[in-house]
Order: sequence, then structure tokens, then C-alpha cells
Amino acid sequence: MLRVAVIGATGYTGVELLRILVHHPQAEVSIVTSRKHEGKPISEVFPSLRGRIDLLCGSLNFDRIVKESDFVFTAVPHKTAMEVVPDFHKRNIRVVDLSADFRFRNPRVYQQWYQPHRCEDLLSQAVYGLPELHREAIREAPIVGNPGCYPTGAILALAPMISHRVVDLSHIVIDAKSGASGAGRDPTEATLYCEVNEGLKAYKVLEHRHGPEIEQELVQLAQQPVGVIFVPHLVPMDRGILSTLYVTLNQRQDTSHLLELYSEFYEREPFVRVCPEGQVPNVADVRGSNFCDIGLKVADNGGRAVIVSAIDNLVKGASGQAVQNMNVMCGFPEENGLEGVALFP
Amino acid sequence: MLRVAVIGATGYTGVELLRILVHHPQAEVSIVTSRKHEGKPISEVFPSLRGRIDLLCGSLNFDRIVKESDFVFTAVPHKTAMEVVPDFHKRNIRVVDLSADFRFRNPRVYQQWYQPHRCEDLLSQAVYGLPELHREAIREAPIVGNPGCYPTGAILALAPMISHRVVDLSHIVIDAKSGASGAGRDPTEATLYCEVNEGLKAYKVLEHRHGPEIEQELVQLAQQPVGVIFVPHLVPMDRGILSTLYVTLNQRQDTSHLLELYSEFYEREPFVRVCPEGQVPNVADVRGSNFCDIGLKVADNGGRAVIVSAIDNLVKGASGQAVQNMNVMCGFPEENGLEGVALFP
Amino acid sequence: MLRVAVIGATGYTGVELLRILVHHPQAEVSIVTSRKHEGKPISEVFPSLRGRIDLLCGSLNFDRIVKESDFVFTAVPHKTAMEVVPDFHKRNIRVVDLSADFRFRNPRVYQQWYQPHRCEDLLSQAVYGLPELHREAIREAPIVGNPGCYPTGAILALAPMISHRVVDLSHIVIDAKSGASGAGRDPTEATLYCEVNEGLKAYKVLEHRHGPEIEQELVQLAQQPVGVIFVPHLVPMDRGILSTLYVTLNQRQDTSHLLELYSEFYEREPFVRVCPEGQVPNVADVRGSNFCDIGLKVADNGGRAVIVSAIDNLVKGASGQAVQNMNVMCGFPEENGLEGVALFP
Amino acid sequence: MLRVAVIGATGYTGVELLRILVHHPQAEVSIVTSRKHEGKPISEVFPSLRGRIDLLCGSLNFDRIVKESDFVFTAVPHKTAMEVVPDFHKRNIRVVDLSADFRFRNPRVYQQWYQPHRCEDLLSQAVYGLPELHREAIREAPIVGNPGCYPTGAILALAPMISHRVVDLSHIVIDAKSGASGAGRDPTEATLYCEVNEGLKAYKVLEHRHGPEIEQELVQLAQQPVGVIFVPHLVPMDRGILSTLYVTLNQRQDTSHLLELYSEFYEREPFVRVCPEGQVPNVADVRGSNFCDIGLKVADNGGRAVIVSAIDNLVKGASGQAVQNMNVMCGFPEENGLEGVALFP
Repeated sequence: MLRVAVIGATGYTGVELLRILVHHPQAEVSIVTSRKHEGKPISEVFPSLRGRIDLLCGSLNFDRIVKESDFVFTAVPHKTAMEVVPDFHKRNIRVVDLSADFRFRNPRVYQQWYQPHRCEDLLSQAVYGLPELHREAIREAPIVGNPGCYPTGAILALAPMISHRVVDLSHIVIDAKSGASGAGRDPTEATLYCEVNEGLKAYKVLEHRHGPEIEQELVQLAQQPVGVIFVPHLVPMDRGILSTLYVTLNQRQDTSHLLELYSEFYEREPFVRVCPEGQVPNVADVRGSNFCDIGLKVADNGGRAVIVSAIDNLVKGASGQAVQNMNVMCGFPEENGLEGVALFP
Repeated sequence: MLRVAVIGATGYTGVELLRILVHHPQAEVSIVTSRKHEGKPISEVFPSLRGRIDLLCGSLNFDRIVKESDFVFTAVPHKTAMEVVPDFHKRNIRVVDLSADFRFRNPRVYQQWYQPHRCEDLLSQAVYGLPELHREAIREAPIVGNPGCYPTGAILALAPMISHRVVDLSHIVIDAKSGASGAGRDPTEATLYCEVNEGLKAYKVLEHRHGPEIEQELVQLAQQPVGVIFVPHLVPMDRGILSTLYVTLNQRQDTSHLLELYSEFYEREPFVRVCPEGQVPNVADVRGSNFCDIGLKVADNGGRAVIVSAIDNLVKGASGQAVQNMNVMCGFPEENGLEGVALFP
Repeated sequence: MLRVAVIGATGYTGVELLRILVHHPQAEVSIVTSRKHEGKPISEVFPSLRGRIDLLCGSLNFDRIVKESDFVFTAVPHKTAMEVVPDFHKRNIRVVDLSADFRFRNPRVYQQWYQPHRCEDLLSQAVYGLPELHREAIREAPIVGNPGCYPTGAILALAPMISHRVVDLSHIVIDAKSGASGAGRDPTEATLYCEVNEGLKAYKVLEHRHGPEIEQELVQLAQQPVGVIFVPHLVPMDRGILSTLYVTLNQRQDTSHLLELYSEFYEREPFVRVCPEGQVPNVADVRGSNFCDIGLKVADNGGRAVIVSAIDNLVKGASGQAVQNMNVMCGFPEENGLEGVALFP
Repeated sequence: MLRVAVIGATGYTGVELLRILVHHPQAEVSIVTSRKHEGKPISEVFPSLRGRIDLLCGSLNFDRIVKESDFVFTAVPHKTAMEVVPDFHKRNIRVVDLSADFRFRNPRVYQQWYQPHRCEDLLSQAVYGLPELHREAIREAPIVGNPGCYPTGAILALAPMISHRVVDLSHIVIDAKSGASGAGRDPTEATLYCEVNEGLKAYKVLEHRHGPEIEQELVQLAQQPVGVIFVPHLVPMDRGILSTLYVTLNQRQDTSHLLELYSEFYEREPFVRVCPEGQVPNVADVRGSNFCDIGLKVADNGGRAVIVSAIDNLVKGASGQAVQNMNVMCGFPEENGLEGVALFP
């Protein structure tokens, strides 16, 4: 059994990692840490875990962690991540980092949107953890930068079209809608129940940090510049991201041909489901699962297309994908721990 | 006091008309009808009305209605509306119809999206009831076709740009998100609590009947063809439509200039509020009110723009706008009955 | 026009006071204060108010407030309230305080559940602001302690039975369920969207501070000891309290007789609606209104009864009742500003 | 592998059975039937199942079902159940029936609350499927009547107290609150999103059919009459039942002693978790899991007690318990297929 440490176990991505890992046939959680709840049983912080996992929240003692675990997930905020990941790296332990700190290949982009990077040298060793695009590199990576939730939904929706060069790259609109868990568990006025419930708004219009992350991957895929308009929205639900994308096609296409192209592209992918013609996805159908569902339809006599993707932001958009990356890194069957069917209703 | 009849009072737009009219200083509800609840007190159908309105649901007796009322709202489904509106019209009573039956100037468009029209001759006398665009015509109209909810939010978001010819008309994306009350009160599996809650989906992608309605108004405003991609979404909340629009500008603009243009365009409008630069609207801030809030921001170095509008689909998107139309038609102050502040939280 | 100051205008009860007062025919808001948002337009803090109220959040300058207003609502937390109310009192301005600081007649009870009271002398002049029980005293009161939300729903549900001495006083169970706005606008983990949504729990079981407040009023009504078991619950909705009460009757009764007793007791009350036999209330039917709806049914062959009451915790449970108290104190018609019909759906 | 048929697979308990059985190490779903969706792939009815289960909805062909399966779950409405269960029984196939039809030992009680029973003779062979009370009988039962959702939460909350005879049996109050999935998937006005959301109501006060079911089990446990007041409520959430029970104790007790008694009673139960002193359960912590969490606290100086239990109505309250029963009947480890941790948030 792979002994796994979850650093920062008491946020939403932390508890979701634990929920998933509890079922994993080849991994077991050996250590959980939490600055805020140090010394408390994790099952007191999250009563959902009672009877399933029985660990105390420990402190960030690197030596002890390395001694008692073989693999690390860092589920801490960005900036904190780059303060701790190097300590694991130099102790030769592989890490999947769920923050933004190891997602960017170019430290200047990171600096522009976050802050100066503390360990630029490690960036070149880190791999962007979207298995559908980077599986081979992930296999050997010492550090995997687990993708952001919005980028996961958006990139998977676009990758087949960009790979097949059927889309006008200067002209991509991503209208994304997320549930509230994406904002994390730190108390803020904006994420109070009464501020979110029965409300609906766009936020950080054209200014969200997931914008440059999306662009990095699309540019790499296209090998040329890509223009993206990215507008995220906050929706009154716990989980889920629905991304609706509007693209101009390079030449007229019909829906069924594009769907074939998607089905082929994702043929061997265990977690991408392409909807049959006439259907588009609903986040309710992926809730709690690691699936990304994708549907599409051409518009404007085939001159444009609407693509819709749905993920659970805490699973395929965070902790599920992190476990998928661990599976790839460790040579485990990729679906291990992630076979779950969505909870509907 | 204007005596008002509400035909089809037991749907969501019906009860919303009653909620608003109860406070109206120059109108009183004299008649409510309901096929389904005939003979029942309306306050038994909607206990929210107890102590505020005390009428029995009557049948569709035209002679009695005309005798006991001076003005009619038809809040019945499309198709039913065109079966009853002519009977009021020929009795010389003015009607605001909340269905789709009197919104289209071209009966062929109506036929294509709904069914053959039963009284094409009346269409030419009907006015599309968006006061911000057609106030003068509404004043004298015998029949007002009250706009659809999606069209209200989308047209108000675009009208200033189209009027000022700053936008590329071939290229307008409308990504609209609605609460569940827009689907009405008839029981269907798709609108059950557990089907909507914690779900989020696009539906009728490029096939929604409000698409041609939006186009009709934009084309008239532009006096040339307009290409619209309209994708509605269902969001787990009772009320509200947030529309996010993506447009290409004919020449580079900055945000503040466009906001000025909007502020001027809506300067005298009592129910349109333009958000200050840096802000975009939230449906929570218009819930229960007749306001349409609009914000915008340029993208792509001023080459494109994102516009966001928020309405309450049952108020500005239906019953509030219907009362606003009545006010215009009757020469009442336009805000009468509609001064309410949004219910937040 | 009565010039009204709202001290602490940027919490949920504050914005609700403003929403209601905007429509009041005999009062106008002349001053709003906020420590947190001092200097900001109130309509920037709450965009719902844009175009309806146009004041800057001021500081707590007593002299200025007294100069520019004739009446004060204090919508600040308990403890803060008793620090500011005396300053208004000695300037001869009447106050409705929405905190707990002036609700208790016995300062020792206050001290036991909150902290030592700073101005015990004023307690004797303050009146508990439940107009249905204390209307005459409220009329002349210099200070009104506006009731808690749970007590309002529970006391109104019990008052007729206790007044008529039909109920066993040693044996009253109050199972109350509240929406999240009752917890206020200060960010806490427990009131985050994802903690409340799709959750349901009892909290502060037998330890909630509204327990002794309920007992104070029931004891006064009964003129003898009363035993109450009070368990509040948090429900995933914005507004509303549903209280389900279980009582043992002193002698067998039937439902219709008890309902008559209730109807008579509340006959002249503008804001209490007794449900017809066979019906019990739904918070959805009072949302945004000042009504308290009450239904009941006997159990156990008439030996016991179940009573259900519904209020909007921010209206009849807070700001609406505060305005009702102001109306009583100032000799205004009691329904002024409070005629609104509930927002359904 | 046990081949399992799910009769009536397209309701909420049906899809929940499939979600659970997909993971079961010793069972596989071989047949699903649906009158409404006959001929359709089940993964088209529930896109959440796509890629996980690949069966067509079949018709109710008993011979084929018996040929292709070894075990049957009937997830059809009551009345339908007693029309089909005998056909399986006479073909020697064991059945867990999720309807009410095989829960009552006394056919007259069934008749009083439902309708005349069609196969009274089978009732005597059926076992009430609450493993915590009837495990041994379930092991051999040809037919198991799977308990109702409310009874499961209420009985588990009371069983230790009744077994230990510490509670006054004439005097038990059960205030239960359920999410909307308990009402099933058939479209009704009362379960539309906009009727449930932001609403909260008691319903079927003292008239709910789960009342006599609760009484049957409590009476059997107590071996004497039991008086129950049962009031169910509808709460705006998908899943979960929170039951708050109010009991009078036969002699004074303290909380910790009662908790010990509960912990011992449920010591070997895999799915009942007793909360530590000072804690009460939240439905959010059992969502999607088969756990029943129970907390309690004495009131009134130990003379009374408040007990709170939480279950997921579709899991421990229906399909999870059904699978647990199957495990008991087939001699499988009782937790198989049911190890899942609750989905939080």
C-alpha cells in the first residue's frame, strides 16, 4: 500500500481527497496535517469521516511525514504550496500540488497573476497535471501541478478542436459557471449562504487567474497564439462547473462530424464522456464523480459551435484529478478510487 | 380606480401580477379567473395573498369580465391567449398579453416557432411591450404583447450598442441563465425540485423560442440583419435571469465610454440601472423588483465587450413589465405599483 | 415626515429596515451609519438600494444624528446596543433596539445569558416590542426592545392557549427551524454557503439565548412558571422560521374550538393570520411580509395539540416588527410600510 | 456474482440502487425494468450512469427475470409491489421490496392506511428490514419489507431507550424533516422546484402513513402500547432526514449515561454512529452514505431528553438499507457496496 500524506486536509479539497482515498485499493492515508486544527481528530473536523478514517491532524513536520508516507498531496493555498513543496522534493518524495504554484511553465506569467515565484527552478521539473494531455510526462514527474477547476473544464472542451485545427484561435469565448465550493472554506462575506443563495453573478470578469492558465495550455496545444475571453460566474449550488464555449470554425462543420472527432479524441480516456448528438451535459450527472461530460452543437450553418462541458469542481476539477495523477505517477490503474457513480439526485 | 381582470391568475405570472397590483394606487383587481381552480378563493390557491385580496377564481365569462373590469391581463399559455384576446378586443377592452401570441410582427415567424396564428389581423395592431423601445406606440396600443423574459434581459443589454452602431451585428453571443420559475407552474419531471437543485445545464441550445423574438427586436433596431447565438441555461434558484453577452465592436472602445453611452441611453428610464465601472450585476439585487441592472467591460484591447444584465424574470421579465405597460397605456406614472426595493437577502 | 436614523445599516436587519422604510408614507430615512463601511454610499454596499435611497454611511455622531433625525433604530449587535442606546435616550430620542439588550426585564437573566448589563436602570423603562401583547405599553415607551426572531414565532403561537389557560405549562416543546439570514452577515465558517446548503442540523440544543426570552414572556402571560424545551435548527434557505410546538392540553379539546379561540384572540391583529382547519403554514407564504401565519391540530384524541407558526425572520422576526413598533409609538396606522404581499415564489 | 434485478429502476430509489450496486463486489445488476422507459438504455434515462452500467430498460417479464437474475429489488410504488412480489416469490426468488406493501405484520393496519392487501398470506413470511432490530429474521426471509425513510430515522433513535425501558411510552414526539427526494420522481405541483425552494412546511400532520409503521416497531420492541405524535416537514434540500425526538424519561438520567447506553446498543452496528457528548448530527455528514448518526441531550434536569438522528433518506432510508438487507440475506459482509463516505460538501 502506498502511504499517502495530505497536507492541508481541512479545506474542501482536503476532505475530498480523504473521501476518495479511503476507497483506494492501493493507497492509504497515513498522515493528515492542518495548521488550524492541529491535534484534533480529522473525524471531528469532518464528522462525515467518522468510522472511516481515524487520524489526528498533525503539524507540518517534514521528517516525520517523509518517514511515514511515500507520496504527498499538498492541498494548501497558493504561496503556501511553494513554501512546502521544495522540502518534500529535496527529500525525494513525489508531490501532487493542488494549488496554482506549479501549474505555470513560465514564472513571469505566475508572477504577473500571483506573486514572485520562490522556486523557479522547480517549475521546469513540474508537469501540468491534466492526464488527457500530459499523461506520459506525468508518469515520471517529481511534481505535478494539479490543474485549476475552470481550466480543466475549458481545456477538455477545446482540446479536440484545437488539436484538429478546426477552430479560429483568435476568437474563443468561455462562459463558465461554478458552484460555491470552488471558493474554499475560508469565511468571507461573499461566500456566506445568504450572499450566494438565490443570487447569480459574473465575477472577476476577464481578470480571473484561471484565464492565463487556460491560455498556457491552449497555446501549447495550438503552437500559436490563442485569444480567450473568460468570464466566470458564481451559481447557488455546492459543486459543479458548467462551461459553455462559443467558437468560430475555420470551415463549415456539422455536429455529428465534430462529435465523432471528440469521441475519437477521447476514445481511451476513462473519465471523459462525449454526449450523444442532441444532448448536452448537466453538472448533476457528474456530482461526486471524476467524469467530464462534453456535448456540442454547431450554429450559424456550421460556421460556429457551442461546446458545453460539465465537471465536479472538487473531483475532476481538483481532488479526483489529483488522485488520477497519483495513479498515473505510481503506475496504478487510472480508475482506482475513482470508479464512483455521480450522486443523483 | 382602474378595475383590472387577471385571466389565468393561478400560474406564477398570475400571482405575481396580483402581488404587484395589490399595491397599485390607481388600479384594483376586480376579477381573477382560473380554469383549474374555478370557484376557489384565490387566497386558498396562494395563501400568501390571504388578507390582501379576497376574490373567488371565476370562469372565462367575457361579458361579466368586461362589465366588471376596465383592463385585462392575460396570463395564460400561448395558443390559449390568441383564443381569448380577440374576445376582449372586440369588446373594446385593452389587453396586456403575457404569452408569446402577440409579440411577433410577422405571423410566419410565429407559425414557424409556435403554430399557425389564429388572428393575424390583430398582430398588426399589437405592440411589443418593451417600454424602453416602444413607449409611444404602447401608449395607444389596444393590445400589448408583453416581452419574453430572456428577450427583456438581452435586448436591454444590447439596445444602446445597436442604436449607436458600435457593434458587429453578425456576431452576438447571448449566454443566458434563468431561475426555475420561468418554466411555469405546470408539473413536469424536468422542473421537480430534485431535478433542478444542485444541477446546472444548458437547454434548447440554439432552439429556444425566445431566439427569434430577440432577433425581431434587434433587427428592427439595427435596420439590418442580426446574427444571434442564444443559449439559455437553467439555474437552481427561484427567480432571476442573468444574461452575459459577448460582442465584437466595430472599432476599439474603452469601458468608460461605453458606460457613458449606456447611461445616456437609459437616462430617463425609471427601471434600468447602469452599474458603475468595475461592477457587474447580481440577480439578487433585483429580486422582486422591476429593475434591469446592466454592467459591461471591454475585452481584447477594446475590440470586444462583455455585457451583463440582470432582471427578475417574473417582474421586469413578466408581470412587472406588464404593469409598467398598463401604466404607460393608461397614462399613469410609470413607476406606480413598481417602486419596490429588491428583497435582499 | 418622521426623520429616521438607522444605526448599523449594513447588516441584514439594517438593509431590511431600509427596504421597508423606503415605502413608508410617514417616515424617511435621514441617516444611516456603519462602522465598517463609513463614507461609502449605502447603495454601493447594497446595490439593491440603488436609485431608491441615496445616503452615505456615516459615523456614530450622536449630536448630528439627533439633529437630523427624530427616531432611531439600532441594528447593531447586542452589547454594542447598550453602549449607544443611552446616548440617544438622554437626548430624548426614542429608540427601537433590534438587539437583545433591552428585551429582558430582569437584568440577572440578561447577565446569565449575555453579560453584565451596563444600564440596568433603563431596562425598567424599556418595553418588550411584541405589539400583539404589549401594544399599550409600546405606545408610550422611550425604548422598545424588539423581540428575537424565534421568540416572535413561538410566543405568537402560544399566547392564545396560555391566555385561555388550556395548556399544561410544565410541558411545552418548541421545535424551531430557521433560514440562514438569522445568523447575520458576519463571515463564519458555519454560515458559508457550502456548510448550510444541503445540510440540516439542530444547534445550541437547549442552550439558545432565545430560550429565556421566550420563557420571560410566557411566564408573564401565564403568571406562573412555564417549562419550555426549545431546540432551534438551521435550514438551507435565506429567510423564514417555522416553529412546530407540541403541547399537552389541560382538558380534551377539538381542533375547531381551538382555532376559534385563536381567531378571536387575533381578531384585530393586522399581522396574524390563523389558517383554516386542515391547513398549516409555509414560510414561503410569508417571505418578505410582516405576517405571522398560525395553524394547529389536536392529537391524541384532543389531549394534545400541534401548533405551527411561520414568520419571515427578517420581517416579523426583526425589521418589520421594528417598523410596526415605530408605527405604534408614533401613532401611525400600524400597517404603514408593511402592507406588502409575500414574494411567492 | 449474484445477479440482481431492479424492478422499477427509473425512480429515485431505483437509480440509487444502481449507483450502489455498481460498486458491489459480489453482486451485479443483470436486469432493470421500467414501464415508462421500456426499451431505452438506463444510461439515457440517467446520464450519471453512462459508462458504468449498460442495460436497456426491460419489461416485467417474470420468466426472463427469474432466468437472468438470482435476486430482486422491487422499487415500484406500493400497490404495484404486491401485484408483482408474489410472482417472484412463487418462482422461489428472494425479494427486497422498497414499497410499504410488505412492512406491516397486521394486514388490517395496512388496509386502514393504504388499501386492502392482495396477498395477506405472504405478509406473515415477510420480515421488516431493519437489520439493527431484525437481522436474524432477515437472514432467512423470503421477502423483506424495506423500512420507510422516516421510520428508519425514528426507530433507530428510539430503540436503545425503549429496549432499556427508560422512556415514558405514552409520550413520544417525533418532529421529522425531510429533503424533497422522499416524494419521488413523479411530477406534482407540490414538489416543483419553486414550490419547495425557500419554503418550509409541516405536512400530513398526524396523518402520515409512516406513523403506524413507526408504532408497529416500537410496540413490538416495548411489548406494550406506545403513543407517538409524528409530524413530518418538507425542507428545501435533495436528500436527508433529520428527526428530532422529545421524550419523557421514567427516571432522571444524565446525558453521558444515556450516550453510553446508545453506544453499547449499537456497538457492533456498522452503520449507526453515536455522536460524542455535546454534538448532534447534520444530514450533510451522511449524504450519500448508509450511516445513521445519532446524538442526544437530557433536558429538564434529566427528566426529559432530546434525541436527534440523521440519515440520507435515499440510502439508509431506502436503497442503501435495501442493499444492506440483501447482504444479510445472502451472507455477504454487511458493508459490501456501502463503505462510501458521505459527500461533503
